[in-house]
Amino acid sequence: MRHFAIELEELKTKLLQMGGMVEAALHRSVRAVVDRDADLAKKVKEGEAAINTMEMEIDELVTKLLVLQQPVARDLRFLTSVLKINTDLERMGDLANGLAKRAQSLMNYPPLKLNIDLNHMSSLVESMLLKSLDAFLREDAYLAQQVLLSDDEVDAIRGAAYGEIIAHMQSNPADVRAGVELIFVVRNLERIGDHATNMAEGVIYMAKGVDVRHNSKTLV
Amino acid sequence: MRHFAIELEELKTKLLQMGGMVEAALHRSVRAVVDRDADLAKKVKEGEAAINTMEMEIDELVTKLLVLQQPVARDLRFLTSVLKINTDLERMGDLANGLAKRAQSLMNYPPLKLNIDLNHMSSLVESMLLKSLDAFLREDAYLAQQVLLSDDEVDAIRGAAYGEIIAHMQSNPADVRAGVELIFVVRNLERIGDHATNMAEGVIYMAKGVDVRHNSKTLV
Repeated sequence: MRHFAIELEELKTKLLQMGGMVEAALHRSVRAVVDRDADLAKKVKEGEAAINTMEMEIDELVTKLLVLQQPVARDLRFLTSVLKINTDLERMGDLANGLAKRAQSLMNYPPLKLNIDLNHMSSLVESMLLKSLDAFLREDAYLAQQVLLSDDEVDAIRGAAYGEIIAHMQSNPADVRAGVELIFVVRNLERIGDHATNMAEGVIYMAKGVDVRHNSKTLV
Repeated sequence: MRHFAIELEELKTKLLQMGGMVEAALHRSVRAVVDRDADLAKKVKEGEAAINTMEMEIDELVTKLLVLQQPVARDLRFLTSVLKINTDLERMGDLANGLAKRAQSLMNYPPLKLNIDLNHMSSLVESMLLKSLDAFLREDAYLAQQVLLSDDEVDAIRGAAYGEIIAHMQSNPADVRAGVELIFVVRNLERIGDHATNMAEGVIYMAKGVDVRHNSKTLV
């Protein structure tokens, strides 16, 4: 049992590493969009393989622990939750990679004159990611609840951003291509926030035994 | 052990039901877009709760089986795979729900004159969904491989559709709003295909012991 505790700690450490890698990818990909930084976009894309490898390592470790330790109750629920959270984290990494591709594509067009604060939106989403992971590992339902509130703010920013981009495209048809790319940037950021929200809802479920997954909001 | 076999069958049946519900939602939501059918869109949105309930039931059943049966090796891997596939199915349901919302929104604008065959794209994606689920339950790696091939076709259709919608918006700025909605329709369909691809890659992994998840394509 002592050995099991050590392996659980190893798993938590890996999950935090995974979270850190995804957070870094997200941060860099948004900077690549805002600063039109091709090197940063390239770095994000190069880093994707490491995130994918980590996802597989975590899945393997969970499966190994399930097989060898035959955990019950609390530990079992923790391990099955890690499987779901690991999927969320990997998808967030994919979405950051998508942002890096959008950054590269956007460099082919002149910058659009818009008042969209992508940095703010991104720091909100980054903080949701870290909070939801932290909430999971500390089983802190209160912290998880804060993630749900941030998600409402992210959705509001997204709505305003869409409106601005669409109005700009209507007045400037030559900017339609770049505008569509930007819509996807905003969309990816929002979806990363949705994955953090998923994770947070899972924490609340674990802590309170209440499944809030389908009472707060949908993902689409 | 006999009891365990019965419960596994019950789980498989539920998973197939879930797949059927998601497939129906997908089919209806695309018809709602194409035929501008508000009633169908409404039906899809009303059906979302049942899909969410089924997701929770399947998760609960898996957890119960893990706790009570302490399965090993093959059964264990099957159960952890069901958790991941269940998540994919629920997300596909969310995406179908998103399509229904786009259908409702698109009815506010005059129809765009475009040559995008959403019905074809949708039937490809529906078939990917059913094949990947079938491949999972029959552990049929060959069938799963076919899903990966269809995904390439879906991606090609998506690329052509984007090009057409963007060109139309450039020439008809008044249609930008409806064009953006349509881009999201195409995007949601492609993403539903991506989730089917995820499931198929999981099947190949189980069958062959080869993790193809991160060698074929990314999700974004």
